[in-house]
Amino acid sequence: MAQENQKEEKITFNIDKDRNFSEWFTEIIKVAELADMRYNVKGFVVFQPWSVLAMEAMYDLYERALQRKGHNPMWFPAVIPEKNFFLERSHVEGFAPEVFWITEHGASEKLEEKLALRPTSETAIYQMYSLWIRSYKDLPFKAYQRAQVWRHETKATRPFLRSREFYWIEAHDVFANEEGAMRQVHEDMEIAEEILHKKFGVPFIFFKRPQWDKFAGAVNTYAADAIMPNGKIVQQPSTHLLEQNFSKAFDVKFRDSDGNEKYAYITCYGPCISRMFASVIAMHGDSKGLKFPFEIAPKQIVIVPIAADKNNAVMKKAQELADLLSANYRVEIDASEKSPGEKFYYWEMKGVPLRIELGPKEVKEKKLTIYRRDTNKKEAVSEKQLLKFVESSAGEITENLCASADKYFSGIIKDAKSLDEIKSAVDSGKIARTNFCSTELGGAKCAETIEKQLGARVRGTRVDKSEKPSGKCAVCGKEAKEVVYIANEY
Amino acid sequence: MAQENQKEEKITFNIDKDRNFSEWFTEIIKVAELADMRYNVKGFVVFQPWSVLAMEAMYDLYERALQRKGHNPMWFPAVIPEKNFFLERSHVEGFAPEVFWITEHGASEKLEEKLALRPTSETAIYQMYSLWIRSYKDLPFKAYQRAQVWRHETKATRPFLRSREFYWIEAHDVFANEEGAMRQVHEDMEIAEEILHKKFGVPFIFFKRPQWDKFAGAVNTYAADAIMPNGKIVQQPSTHLLEQNFSKAFDVKFRDSDGNEKYAYITCYGPCISRMFASVIAMHGDSKGLKFPFEIAPKQIVIVPIAADKNNAVMKKAQELADLLSANYRVEIDASEKSPGEKFYYWEMKGVPLRIELGPKEVKEKKLTIYRRDTNKKEAVSEKQLLKFVESSAGEITENLCASADKYFSGIIKDAKSLDEIKSAVDSGKIARTNFCSTELGGAKCAETIEKQLGARVRGTRVDKSEKPSGKCAVCGKEAKEVVYIANEY
Repeated sequence: MAQENQKEEKITFNIDKDRNFSEWFTEIIKVAELADMRYNVKGFVVFQPWSVLAMEAMYDLYERALQRKGHNPMWFPAVIPEKNFFLERSHVEGFAPEVFWITEHGASEKLEEKLALRPTSETAIYQMYSLWIRSYKDLPFKAYQRAQVWRHETKATRPFLRSREFYWIEAHDVFANEEGAMRQVHEDMEIAEEILHKKFGVPFIFFKRPQWDKFAGAVNTYAADAIMPNGKIVQQPSTHLLEQNFSKAFDVKFRDSDGNEKYAYITCYGPCISRMFASVIAMHGDSKGLKFPFEIAPKQIVIVPIAADKNNAVMKKAQELADLLSANYRVEIDASEKSPGEKFYYWEMKGVPLRIELGPKEVKEKKLTIYRRDTNKKEAVSEKQLLKFVESSAGEITENLCASADKYFSGIIKDAKSLDEIKSAVDSGKIARTNFCSTELGGAKCAETIEKQLGARVRGTRVDKSEKPSGKCAVCGKEAKEVVYIANEY
Repeated sequence: MAQENQKEEKITFNIDKDRNFSEWFTEIIKVAELADMRYNVKGFVVFQPWSVLAMEAMYDLYERALQRKGHNPMWFPAVIPEKNFFLERSHVEGFAPEVFWITEHGASEKLEEKLALRPTSETAIYQMYSLWIRSYKDLPFKAYQRAQVWRHETKATRPFLRSREFYWIEAHDVFANEEGAMRQVHEDMEIAEEILHKKFGVPFIFFKRPQWDKFAGAVNTYAADAIMPNGKIVQQPSTHLLEQNFSKAFDVKFRDSDGNEKYAYITCYGPCISRMFASVIAMHGDSKGLKFPFEIAPKQIVIVPIAADKNNAVMKKAQELADLLSANYRVEIDASEKSPGEKFYYWEMKGVPLRIELGPKEVKEKKLTIYRRDTNKKEAVSEKQLLKFVESSAGEITENLCASADKYFSGIIKDAKSLDEIKSAVDSGKIARTNFCSTELGGAKCAETIEKQLGARVRGTRVDKSEKPSGKCAVCGKEAKEVVYIANEY
């Protein structure tokens, strides 16, 4: 297969992730064949099988969680008429600069109306909600789509982290009142905890964003900030309380139990699968390459037959084990011509959680040698115990990776009392916690100062606990109304 | 939920599918909430949860079959630079008239280069294959993507059957020689048999298309023709032998074992999920509404509690059964305020394969009443036997629907010896089999006569058997070289 070439150039991957994260990230994407950046449209990449298999498993887990919480899947058109865009004023201001416009078809024939290639789907979806929702009995109305969105980003693009095309889920939920909507915001955060943290092993903090950093058209934005090994924040799922802004713009009304017609309360939630994948590989990898939580590993088990050319029983047994395991797991037999050592390095670099080494000795003794990528240790496992071993390792591997990510994350916050202390915290890859005048629009000037002087940004106030400031704003010296967090971001 | 409104207007669905297929098809899409045609861009529809759940299950089965046969999944950009389109001459001629072009971003700023919204992905993918494939050891190279494609159709659009946006899979496979490529064409046909026929219950015949009706850029096109209850053909998966046409245009070369550099042989395969869904509902439905093969039913089992307001044990038992079944199946409890009769009609219209009726009597006797939508019959099943019953019914339901579709399909071919006989066959909803001069370009004129006079089209020659003509072409009277099939099409 295509990896042949790269293998010839470089048999072993060996980059210190903690010291040279940027190089590690760029190289592992290439060497593990996660994405190819040579596609000939700027800001667009090709996602290769090794990342797609993982991202499909991630979609599956996230979608199942949404469905368990009462969401139905739907598929909306990728194109949105220009006029829809102008119905919600702040939304269009926020998104219009990034829209790709379809204006022609065939031999340069003009379309009757310009069509936006969706950058997000509020303006496509809510006009239909307006038709579908009639009565309080229709509420809550919870639905989502897995979809790509396209944004003409002006910031530098990086595969998985920021591209002009990305793969996400967008959930759009409708409620009779603000309480229902706020409960949904909390449910969205719980789903992130259940899936992004516990299944993908990526820790984060949910912040209520300052008023100057909201989703265009939202009343409030709540966003999960995860961190990369270089101390830069990457924003993961965000959920937005739109209240009645869009229901007024798109006429999403319902007849309440009291007989009156009312505008509905809407929330939207955007977990981005391709971006979460960036956090997954960045959090768990090491100098040998990738590591994957078990449930989302592209292949979960690789079987490496040893000396199979001299012993027919080896390949037979390898196939037998693969058949046994394939009922529940994604399994690969590496029957290539490489040496066992080369195969070991290769699959360690690719991050396969379990490797079964199977030679004549193992076949004879009915005892397998199994390597765990999370611990980089081998164990002897009797053939009879194989299924049980895989089942219990599966959970352990995910928990183990999650725990070490948590450990790294737990030391990431540093208190800071002045611009200098904030600078020293963020420069050393930490998140600075500091007193701050305000996260209402009045605080925007201090945030600007931080951004200009330190290149760092105010992330907002914590959602999981209420923190009271004691003292003055670290920037302007006025009385602080909030405790905010500040960090560098991708 | 949203169905409320429609329910109020129309509690029962009752349209004779065989007599009024067109009305049946239009109405069931609306009443069962499969797709909403009120989206405000021409030719684009919104796919609603009830169809999306089924289509996701269909994607899953099809993708797993492709993966079992050695295909890897990948995700390519939805946009293709204009220049790529002009590299394969017949391809651009075929597709250029249908392309949507992205020309601007933001506030009417021109893009440096026009981008096609992909109508199909050969011109996006093969330039990357050219980078990825180096040696005969890289071959066969088999990969696919699940993706949407967009075509500015000029024909009338109909939801699922023909839209300007559709949901498909495209597999693109590369081989060292023509034999490898032809084997793939046959494997593609086998996958259609395994999934579209045996799992989705849709029978079809694979035809080798006449030379004037090939995929733009192909040497040969092989396409599965299924039939609708009104006798109109709908083309299902097609697989194309591209030979070296695209490998020459996109420089897909490999170094062979003899040391020489050679152009590769490529095939592409396009099973369209949203269109297969049209065949699924059309083949299996009846006057009461939808029927689904078990594996792809949006919900597989609905539990209807009866007199639950008077007996607490009923809801408790319903939840218990739902929990038991949910581990393996898609289950819904209908706890709405409707009467049991209304619920029965509703879920029959929606096509749920199994309905468990659960009242105080069933709870007390530990005996369930289970209704099967395929046979429209009820059975008493002891609670203990529930899982076993569901498991065995699952297979039976799919086989049963498949068998009755096969039965309908088996009588569909009618021999015809003249234009009049062809007309009488296709007018009565049959596929005419007839002697024909040639499926090379020389036969195009006779095909045109048929199209102009009868509105029907020559589908090609059978792939599953070789048929020798005896006599003259039914149109021009010249000696017939082929036996072809002719039918009306959507």
